[in-house]
Amino acid sequence: MNITPETIGYIAALLTTSSFLPQAVKTIRTRDTHSLSLGMYGIFTLGVFLWLVYGICLADKAIIFANAVTFVLAGAILSYKIYNTLCSKE
Amino acid sequence: MNITPETIGYIAALLTTSSFLPQAVKTIRTRDTHSLSLGMYGIFTLGVFLWLVYGICLADKAIIFANAVTFVLAGAILSYKIYNTLCSKE
Repeated sequence: MNITPETIGYIAALLTTSSFLPQAVKTIRTRDTHSLSLGMYGIFTLGVFLWLVYGICLADKAIIFANAVTFVLAGAILSYKIYNTLCSKE
Repeated sequence: MNITPETIGYIAALLTTSSFLPQAVKTIRTRDTHSLSLGMYGIFTLGVFLWLVYGICLADKAIIFANAVTFVLAGAILSYKIYNTLCSKE
């Protein structure tokens, strides 16, 4: 099997994108966001949104798909964090 | 001011990389990792490591720098999570 830099890049993209799934599942299931940083999820979700805009500008389907998935997952986590912060549940 | 797709990409990269700083600061300060997903930080840190390998293969300084910073931050958070999980502190 020939491992090229492109293969490593695809595996890296798959891992960093899919990694937000277990966090989103944990957060939605427990509704516990106490040790999550509001700053991180605010900045990260905005950054992923800009990656999505970048992908749309370049019409690059891989960038669009990866960042659309991450945006939904990170956005869900951010929503729970904002709700818990505003409703003083933490 | 002329906003090109490259400018949007650089701002996006800056935001998604720097977003892990407030989470790392919060985790190191409080040592609380209860609502963090071990699965997320395990998969994410491995993915960022592969992004770093990808950057080294391509000798791309921007990819190397961004992922080296994120690897240190995500690795620190993962270390606290593993310590707390193994020592049954959560």
